Amino acid sequence: MTAFVPIPDDRFTFGLWTVGWQARDPFGDASRPPLDPVESVHRLAELGAYGVTFHDDDLLAVEPDREKAVAAFRKAIGETGLKVPMATTNLFTHPVFRDGAFTSNDRDVRRYAIRKVMRNLDLAASLGARTYVCWGGREGAESDAAKDVRSALARYKEALDLLGGYVLDQGYEIRFAIEPKPNEPRGDILLPTIGHALAFINELEHPEMVGLNPEVGHEQMAGLNFVHGIAQALWHGKLFHIDLNGQHGPKYDQDLVFGHGDVKSAFFLVDLLEHGGYDGPRHFDYKPLRTEDPADVWVSAAANMRTYLILREKARAFRADPEVQDALRASRVDQLAVPTLAEGETLADLAADDFDPDAAAERGYHFSHLNQLALEHLLGVRGGVDR
Amino acid sequence: MTAFVPIPDDRFTFGLWTVGWQARDPFGDASRPPLDPVESVHRLAELGAYGVTFHDDDLLAVEPDREKAVAAFRKAIGETGLKVPMATTNLFTHPVFRDGAFTSNDRDVRRYAIRKVMRNLDLAASLGARTYVCWGGREGAESDAAKDVRSALARYKEALDLLGGYVLDQGYEIRFAIEPKPNEPRGDILLPTIGHALAFINELEHPEMVGLNPEVGHEQMAGLNFVHGIAQALWHGKLFHIDLNGQHGPKYDQDLVFGHGDVKSAFFLVDLLEHGGYDGPRHFDYKPLRTEDPADVWVSAAANMRTYLILREKARAFRADPEVQDALRASRVDQLAVPTLAEGETLADLAADDFDPDAAAERGYHFSHLNQLALEHLLGVRGGVDR
Amino acid sequence: MTAFVPIPDDRFTFGLWTVGWQARDPFGDASRPPLDPVESVHRLAELGAYGVTFHDDDLLAVEPDREKAVAAFRKAIGETGLKVPMATTNLFTHPVFRDGAFTSNDRDVRRYAIRKVMRNLDLAASLGARTYVCWGGREGAESDAAKDVRSALARYKEALDLLGGYVLDQGYEIRFAIEPKPNEPRGDILLPTIGHALAFINELEHPEMVGLNPEVGHEQMAGLNFVHGIAQALWHGKLFHIDLNGQHGPKYDQDLVFGHGDVKSAFFLVDLLEHGGYDGPRHFDYKPLRTEDPADVWVSAAANMRTYLILREKARAFRADPEVQDALRASRVDQLAVPTLAEGETLADLAADDFDPDAAAERGYHFSHLNQLALEHLLGVRGGVDR
Amino acid sequence: MTAFVPIPDDRFTFGLWTVGWQARDPFGDASRPPLDPVESVHRLAELGAYGVTFHDDDLLAVEPDREKAVAAFRKAIGETGLKVPMATTNLFTHPVFRDGAFTSNDRDVRRYAIRKVMRNLDLAASLGARTYVCWGGREGAESDAAKDVRSALARYKEALDLLGGYVLDQGYEIRFAIEPKPNEPRGDILLPTIGHALAFINELEHPEMVGLNPEVGHEQMAGLNFVHGIAQALWHGKLFHIDLNGQHGPKYDQDLVFGHGDVKSAFFLVDLLEHGGYDGPRHFDYKPLRTEDPADVWVSAAANMRTYLILREKARAFRADPEVQDALRASRVDQLAVPTLAEGETLADLAADDFDPDAAAERGYHFSHLNQLALEHLLGVRGGVDR
Repeated sequence: MTAFVPIPDDRFTFGLWTVGWQARDPFGDASRPPLDPVESVHRLAELGAYGVTFHDDDLLAVEPDREKAVAAFRKAIGETGLKVPMATTNLFTHPVFRDGAFTSNDRDVRRYAIRKVMRNLDLAASLGARTYVCWGGREGAESDAAKDVRSALARYKEALDLLGGYVLDQGYEIRFAIEPKPNEPRGDILLPTIGHALAFINELEHPEMVGLNPEVGHEQMAGLNFVHGIAQALWHGKLFHIDLNGQHGPKYDQDLVFGHGDVKSAFFLVDLLEHGGYDGPRHFDYKPLRTEDPADVWVSAAANMRTYLILREKARAFRADPEVQDALRASRVDQLAVPTLAEGETLADLAADDFDPDAAAERGYHFSHLNQLALEHLLGVRGGVDR
Repeated sequence: MTAFVPIPDDRFTFGLWTVGWQARDPFGDASRPPLDPVESVHRLAELGAYGVTFHDDDLLAVEPDREKAVAAFRKAIGETGLKVPMATTNLFTHPVFRDGAFTSNDRDVRRYAIRKVMRNLDLAASLGARTYVCWGGREGAESDAAKDVRSALARYKEALDLLGGYVLDQGYEIRFAIEPKPNEPRGDILLPTIGHALAFINELEHPEMVGLNPEVGHEQMAGLNFVHGIAQALWHGKLFHIDLNGQHGPKYDQDLVFGHGDVKSAFFLVDLLEHGGYDGPRHFDYKPLRTEDPADVWVSAAANMRTYLILREKARAFRADPEVQDALRASRVDQLAVPTLAEGETLADLAADDFDPDAAAERGYHFSHLNQLALEHLLGVRGGVDR
Repeated sequence: MTAFVPIPDDRFTFGLWTVGWQARDPFGDASRPPLDPVESVHRLAELGAYGVTFHDDDLLAVEPDREKAVAAFRKAIGETGLKVPMATTNLFTHPVFRDGAFTSNDRDVRRYAIRKVMRNLDLAASLGARTYVCWGGREGAESDAAKDVRSALARYKEALDLLGGYVLDQGYEIRFAIEPKPNEPRGDILLPTIGHALAFINELEHPEMVGLNPEVGHEQMAGLNFVHGIAQALWHGKLFHIDLNGQHGPKYDQDLVFGHGDVKSAFFLVDLLEHGGYDGPRHFDYKPLRTEDPADVWVSAAANMRTYLILREKARAFRADPEVQDALRASRVDQLAVPTLAEGETLADLAADDFDPDAAAERGYHFSHLNQLALEHLLGVRGGVDR
Repeated sequence: MTAFVPIPDDRFTFGLWTVGWQARDPFGDASRPPLDPVESVHRLAELGAYGVTFHDDDLLAVEPDREKAVAAFRKAIGETGLKVPMATTNLFTHPVFRDGAFTSNDRDVRRYAIRKVMRNLDLAASLGARTYVCWGGREGAESDAAKDVRSALARYKEALDLLGGYVLDQGYEIRFAIEPKPNEPRGDILLPTIGHALAFINELEHPEMVGLNPEVGHEQMAGLNFVHGIAQALWHGKLFHIDLNGQHGPKYDQDLVFGHGDVKSAFFLVDLLEHGGYDGPRHFDYKPLRTEDPADVWVSAAANMRTYLILREKARAFRADPEVQDALRASRVDQLAVPTLAEGETLADLAADDFDPDAAAERGYHFSHLNQLALEHLLGVRGGVDR
C-alpha cells in the first residue's frame, strides 16, 4: 500500500501566484479574496511541498510595503524550512508593459523592465534561488506591422546579455530559464515554443547561463507533444526548470491541475523526468478553478502532488515490467541507441549494404501492443501499483 | 499598369511533385493521370518559372528506368533553361520508411535512408543544385512509448553529420535545409517547428552547412505565426530556402495555392522576404486541388506566382507610403532598433533612471491605425498598386 | 471614388462594452480608464453608427446609480438618434455566476439569473430593442464529472421557455438570439457552435422566438468555417443578429477589429450578408487592443465600419464581374440549385440513368480559377472598386 | 479478478475498413496487403466481437465480382453468427465524388450517389442492418466561392428525403445516422459537428428516421468536448450509433485505437454510454497504425474492446463509490435536475426571491476534489477495479 503522500525530498514547489490566484479572468471578477503569502508558505509546507517561488509583485498581495512583505516572507520561509529555488519578475500585469518589456517598442519601458528584474534578482539571490525564470508573456504583437521581430530578438538578447552580466558581476549563483508560450495575452508571442527558445539561447553571450522552463500547457496550446519537447530540451542540456500543469489542447491557457489535462502525456512526462536525468524541482504552475472556494484551493494544490506521485509509481512499474521490456525490444526501441554507422565503418561500407527494401518493409513495429501496455499501466490494470 | 507576369528573374520555382500530384488523398483515389516531368518542365518554363526541384522518385513518374528518366529530365532542363536550385529525397512513401528514415527504430532502414540520400545528392550536384532539403516526415511517433526521442535526435544528428561529410568529401557546393513539420503523416514529428530545427542545427558537426526550408502551412498547422518564424530564421542566418503555400490553421496539411490561405500573413511574408535580405528561390510547395483537371493544374500553378507578384507590389507601396512611415514612427516600431543601453552606458546608469511607470503606461501605441493601413494596402484601396 | 464613410442606413451597431473595454486581461490590469456610456453614444453617432447595444451592467460604468445611469443613456440616445436594436444581460462577470447562470448547479443562482434577465428585458423593451442576446459564457464545465449535461440542457430550455413566456406576457416585440461559443471562460461551454444552438432551439416551447447571434471569432476558435455556419443559420431562418470581429484560429478569444483576422473569410461573409437576405444590424463585438490609448479606441471603432464598407463594395464588384459569372457557371456552382430529381421524376427513373462514373470523374471543377478571381477582387487588382 | 474479455453481449462491432485498412496515407503507399472480408469476419468473431459493418466497396477488397463477394461474406456471417447492425456507402474514394456526392455541383454525380446508396440499402436490409450511416466526407469545399451552402443543404435534404422515402417504400426497418466531421478530406465539410447535423435533421421530411453516428475523433478535431456532444445527442434522442476511436486534438484525422487518444474523455464517454440509456452497438472506427504488420492488426482490434471493458468497470466503480456520491452532492451536481421554477410557482414568485449575490458567490463548488476522484478511479488507485 502506497500512500502517495508528498515529502520535501520529492522536491515539489509551487508559485505563490498559483494558490494565490484570485480567479479574475477575461470575463469575470475575482471570486476569492487575496491570500497572504505567509499563509501560503505555511499551508504548502503542511502539505509536504519542498519550496515556493514568486514574482516580485506576488509578495505584495496583502502587504503593500515591500520591506515588510519581504520580511514576513523570510520569516515564514525560516519557520517552515521551505526553499525558494526559483524566482521571477512580473513584466506583464502593469499596463506599462502593454507592448512588452524587454522588446517593447518603447525604450524607456525596456529600461524599466531590466531594472525591475535586477532588483528582484538581488532578492532572489538573498533567498537562495538558483533559477530565475523569464516568461516574456507580453513580448509579442497582434499585427505583423507592429513589431520588427528581428530587432525584437536583438533587444531580447541584449536584455538577457545585460542581466547575465549583472548576475556574474554580483557573483550570484543563478541561471536563467526562459519560459516559452505561443500566444495569450498577446496574439503571437516571441519565442513561442521550446524550440524557438533553445535556438535563441545559442545566440546569447553566456548561453551556458540560460536554459528553459517549459510549461505543459504552453506547448499543448500549439498542439505540440510536450514529452517530445522536454526530451529535446534534455538532449540540449537545457532543462533547467519545469512548469507542471494541465491543458486541453489549442484554446486559452487553462493552467489546470497537473494530470487534469492529458493524463497519458503526464504519465510519459513523469517517466521521462524520473528516468531522464532531470534533477530540478517539480514546479506546479496551475490555477485553482474559479469555481473553487479558499478551502478548495488546498485540495487542488494537494492533487497536483498526489497525481505526480501516483504517476511516478506507475512509471517505475512500467519500466520494471518484463513484458514491457520484451515489447520495447520487439519494437526495436533499444536499437535506436545503436549508431547507424558502426565503429570504424565508412560511408563506403554503408553504401555496399545488400538490402531489399520491399522485404524489410514487411517487418512490423508492434507499437499497438506496446502502447496498450503503457495504457494499462496507467489505468492500473497491470500489477505493480499498490493502492 | 502592372501585368503581374512572372519572369525568371523573379526566381519562382516549383517541385515536380506539386503540379504532378495525382490527388490521391487518405480517403480517395487519384483523380488525375501521372504527369511526365518533361511536360512539367516545359509548362513551368512557359509560365515564367525560374526553376524546378525534385525528389529522387519524382523523376520516375512515367518512366521507370532511372537513367532514361534522368536523361529526359536533363534534356528538358537544357531546352528550357530552367534551373534546378534544390533537390530532395523521398524518405516517406515506401512502406520501408513507416517508422522513419534517419530515426527509424530499424537500423537497416536508417542505413538505407542515408544511401538513398547519397545517391540523389550526386544527381543534385550534377544538376547544379545548391540546396538539399531534408523533410523528415516519417521521423516521429504515435505513442510516446515507441520512440526514445533523445536517441532519435542523436541518430538524426548522426545522419546529417555523415551526409555533411559526404558533401564535403565530394566537393559539392551544397547546403542542407531542414523542413520542419509538427505532424502528419506521423502523430508527432521530430523537429516540429522552425524553432526546434534551428536549435538542433547548433548541435551538428557542420552547423554552417545546415539551415532551414520552412513551409507556410507547416507552422500554421501549429497555430504559429509564420512571419515571426521566418524573421527568427533570418535573424539566425538560417533561411536557406522557403516553401510557399496556403493553409487554414490547425487541421490536415492543405498545401493550398500561395495566398489562398491567410492572405494577410502572405502579404507580410512577402514584405519580409523582399525587404529582409532573403535572396533564395521563391519555391511553391502546393497541391492543385483534387477537384481540378489536368488543365486546371497550370491555372493553379500560375496563380501562385501571380499572387506573389501582386503582394510584392503591395508591399513596396506599403513601405513607400508616407502615411505608413508616419504611423510606424508613431507606433515607435523604429525605436526597437535602438539598443536599450546606450553606447558607453552601464547598468548602474540604467538603474538611475527617473521613470514613472504609471505615467508611461498612458502612452498608446496606435497599432490599430497601423494595422488598418496595412490592410488597406492589401485590399488595394490606397494608391500605389496599378491594376 | 468611394469614400467608405458609414451612414446610419448601413446599420452599424456597437456594444457599449466594446469601445468601453478597459483592457483588463487574464495577465494584466486595465490600461484605459472607464468610459462614460454617454460619451460612447455621442462618439459612435459622430462616426456614423446606427445604434448601440448594452449589457445591463454596462450602463453602470461611471454612474453606480442605475436610474441615473439609464436616464443619462436615454438622453444621449435621444440627442443622437442612435437606435438600441439589441440588449443583453451580464451573466458572467460577478462571481455568483462562476458555475453558470441558467445552468449553474446552484438553483438559487439559476433563479437570480432569470430575474436579472427579466429586469433588463423591461429596459430593453422600453428602449425599443427587438433582439435580446443570450451569451451563456459561464454555462459549462472544466470537468466532465462536474456537470450533468442533459440536465443542464433541460434547465437551459426551462430558462428560455420561462423568458419567452415573460416576453409574450408583457407583449414585448422581442426575439431572443443565442450566441454560441466553444470555450473560454469555461473549459467547455454548452451550445458550443452555431449547430448545437440551432438544434437546441428546436426543443424550445417557442422556437420561433429564438434564433442566433453568431460571432465570427467564436466559430473560428473551433476551426470552423464561419461563412458556412452563417449560411446554415440563414437556411434555417435563424440569423437574428450577428457579431462581427476578427480572430486568428484556435486560441484565446481575440475580438479583433472586423477584417483584422481572416480577411478573405470576412469578404465572403459580407458577400453572404449582403446577398443572402440578412437585414439585421451589422453589430461589431470587438475589443480595442490593450496597447491602444483612449483616442485609438475611436480609430479602431471606425476601422470596423470602414472595412465592412470596403468589403461590401468588393463583394458587389465580384458578383457583377462577367468573368466571375462565367467562372461560377464553369464550376457548376449554379447547378446546385437544380433539384437532383426532376419535377415528376421518380427514384425508379433516377435508377435507370446511364452513367459512366469513370468518364464523369474526368470533369474538372476549375475552382482554382474561381478562387483566384475572388482573391483578386479582394486585393483590388481587378476593376470595380474605386479608391 | 476481471478478465476484460469481450463477449457478443458487449455488442462490440467493427467496420471491415478498419482492420482491412492497407495503411495508404497522403504521403505513403500501402504497408499491408488487402485483407479478405471473410478472414476479418472470422477473426473478429474469435476476438469476441458482436458484429461487423461495411461500405458497399469494402466487400470487394479481394474479390472483384460483387455477387461472389456478397455470397462469401454472407457465408462467413452465417458461420460465425456475427451480426451486421450497420452498413454504409463509399461516396468518397472514387474521383467522381471529388466535389461531393449528394451536394456535388454536378447533378449527374448527385444522381449516381443516390443510386449507389439505394443499391447498398437493399443489401444492408437483406443482412439485417438497422442503421445506415451517411458520412458526407466529400460534401464540402476549399473555397467559399465554390459552393452555395444553402443550395447544398437543400440538396443534402433532398437526398435524405428521397432515401427515407425509398426505405419506407421498401418496408426496410432501417434508420439513417449522419456522421459529422469538420474537415478532411475537404477543407471544410458541411454539417461539421454533432450540432450542425442535429439541426439539419429537423428540416427533413422524416426527421424521426434520421439520427447521428458521432465519431470521437471528428469532434475532437474541432477541439470540442465529445462527451458533451454525445450528451446533447442523447438529450435530443438522436444517438442512433457511435464511432469509437482516439484522436489528439486539432490535426489530421488519426483514427487511433479507442482510449489511445484522450483516455480521460474516453472514461467519461463510457460512463455516459453505460449509464445514459444508449443501447446500440459500440462500434470501433479506427485505423491500425501504418507501422503495424498484419498480425498486429488483430492486437490493435482487441485493444479497442479490452480498453472499453476496463473503462466500463471503472465507470461502474466510480458511480458506486460512496465518496464520489458525496462529492457529487457537495458539488450540487444533482441539484441541476431540479427545475428552477417549482411546481406551481410563477415568475412573479421567482421575482420575489430574497437573494444576496455577494453572499452566494462565496459558495465554492469543490470540483477539484470531484475531478481528482474521477481521475483516481481512472488510474486504478481507488478500490473497485480488480486486475
